[in-house]
Amino acid sequence: MDAITVYRELFLSYLRSKILIKEPKGLYDPIAYILQLRAKRMRPILVLMATDLFGEEPKKALDAALAIEIFHNFTLIHDDIMDAAPLRRNQPTVHEKWDINTGILSGDAMLIQAYQCFESYSPLVNKQLITLFSKTALEICEGQQYDVEFETRDDVTIDEYLKMIEFKTAVLVAAALQMGAIIGGASAEDQEHLYNYGRLLGIAFQLQDDYLDAFGNPETFGKQVGGDIIENKKTYLYLEALLNGSETDKTTINELFSATAISDTKVDTVKEIFVRSKADLSIKAEIKRYTDKAFYELDQINVSPKRKKGLKQFGESLMHREE
Amino acid sequence: MDAITVYRELFLSYLRSKILIKEPKGLYDPIAYILQLRAKRMRPILVLMATDLFGEEPKKALDAALAIEIFHNFTLIHDDIMDAAPLRRNQPTVHEKWDINTGILSGDAMLIQAYQCFESYSPLVNKQLITLFSKTALEICEGQQYDVEFETRDDVTIDEYLKMIEFKTAVLVAAALQMGAIIGGASAEDQEHLYNYGRLLGIAFQLQDDYLDAFGNPETFGKQVGGDIIENKKTYLYLEALLNGSETDKTTINELFSATAISDTKVDTVKEIFVRSKADLSIKAEIKRYTDKAFYELDQINVSPKRKKGLKQFGESLMHREE
Repeated sequence: MDAITVYRELFLSYLRSKILIKEPKGLYDPIAYILQLRAKRMRPILVLMATDLFGEEPKKALDAALAIEIFHNFTLIHDDIMDAAPLRRNQPTVHEKWDINTGILSGDAMLIQAYQCFESYSPLVNKQLITLFSKTALEICEGQQYDVEFETRDDVTIDEYLKMIEFKTAVLVAAALQMGAIIGGASAEDQEHLYNYGRLLGIAFQLQDDYLDAFGNPETFGKQVGGDIIENKKTYLYLEALLNGSETDKTTINELFSATAISDTKVDTVKEIFVRSKADLSIKAEIKRYTDKAFYELDQINVSPKRKKGLKQFGESLMHREE
Repeated sequence: MDAITVYRELFLSYLRSKILIKEPKGLYDPIAYILQLRAKRMRPILVLMATDLFGEEPKKALDAALAIEIFHNFTLIHDDIMDAAPLRRNQPTVHEKWDINTGILSGDAMLIQAYQCFESYSPLVNKQLITLFSKTALEICEGQQYDVEFETRDDVTIDEYLKMIEFKTAVLVAAALQMGAIIGGASAEDQEHLYNYGRLLGIAFQLQDDYLDAFGNPETFGKQVGGDIIENKKTYLYLEALLNGSETDKTTINELFSATAISDTKVDTVKEIFVRSKADLSIKAEIKRYTDKAFYELDQINVSPKRKKGLKQFGESLMHREE
């Protein structure tokens, strides 16, 4: 087993031991349901790896890892209601399997349970973890709100888009790593470097997801290629094309993104515009820039390179940079 | 100004100073809106009074009071979505004024903000407050879930009903008081007595609300008399009438509570059955029993009777027992 698999198994057996069959079932069954769906468990693994980085027992980070995973799944339940999504991880979403009210209330209970996970830590560590957690959780709400508002705005800037994906996706990865560092007894500087590693890698990963959504290999990209284009999503590629495309291409893309009916050629036409406007090259340069900056932050941490190997490999495999 | 008015003004000016006009407005405007609706502010006042009871500055309890008030308003937003309620405090509910997704997300943000309020306390007090807060918040979710489930169940027992109102209403009053006691430096025993005072008083108050909903004076009751009967609510009176009424009365009440159309005589007929089955006397005895138990808990607190005067008057005025 590789290191990541070891961490995943450690987390999964802890997660299973903590999923309770409790009354009222109408509140707790949906929580058990979503927590047991097949998932990569990337965020909790990062908490454990970060604690290990500073030479502390990863076991000590299990409750923080659990908090992050419960919180993440709470956001999935509420986001799926807001997006009216029928499926999550190829299974019915909570509000589909039960109903919207159940999704709201079970989600609320999960947010509270996430906070409860930190109760096993000493008051000092507890307060540090919860302060970081609350700040992050509120940023994620802000990111979700920006995402919703962008759907109906036609003046979204690239900076606003980058801030939105940072809040919606990257800060939780960053907080997962910093929590592990706090439990591992890291200095404030090392905590910050690790937070930034997660934040920058999270942004790079989301941009890569935008790129692959249009230009990925249908056989290896988990989702439908062209999905963002079909859904008129204002991704980095779209914003960049509107900024640097020819007037004709701008008009075409605007028309295609305001039409509700999907034409057969929409995905191909939009991809051609992405290429003509060099949005594809621009995003690839941004991905490289964020990834390089991320690894630079990891380099700065005051720990032997040998100890950093796991986290470095994690980032490399995430960004498909492994040799 | 009486003592309660002094505490209310202290809290309201703090609340106003903490309501921020922040971006994204779509997330924070609904929060400012609900927090500024006219309300009695009973729970935050109790936090301040409890701190004062133990000779500590009520000002020190302002952040905990704010946490309780923000949390309470979060539950109102999400409950109003679940109940599809158009009005709250005679104003449009958040999901009516904005939309359901806004209600979900702004509510989530408020739950997180409530936790953030505790950050001003020392790690030790912070952890005590948050542990109590999370336990209480989760019980309130359970209470809400039981309330929803009772609507479609026909075998609800009186014990289950009492537990539901305890969780849905009473534990937050109890936790408000205990938080004030924690900040006031009270002993564990005194904290428990004060918690129980709030819990028992909260149950008594909710039972009194059930009674007044059927038998109250339309001019002083605030809500529509007979509202629970019109909505087929399974209150204490209903459950007691089904337990002790004659077979004919049981059949009548079951028929009236399963009909969707409201007959002109429904409220009067049901009230007659409540009287014939002595449900009215039974609930009055329960209210007295819980109120007496509540004041007994207050008596047990190791503080001079003079200091207890404010909290005693508060309870008496709540239960209309003032001379």
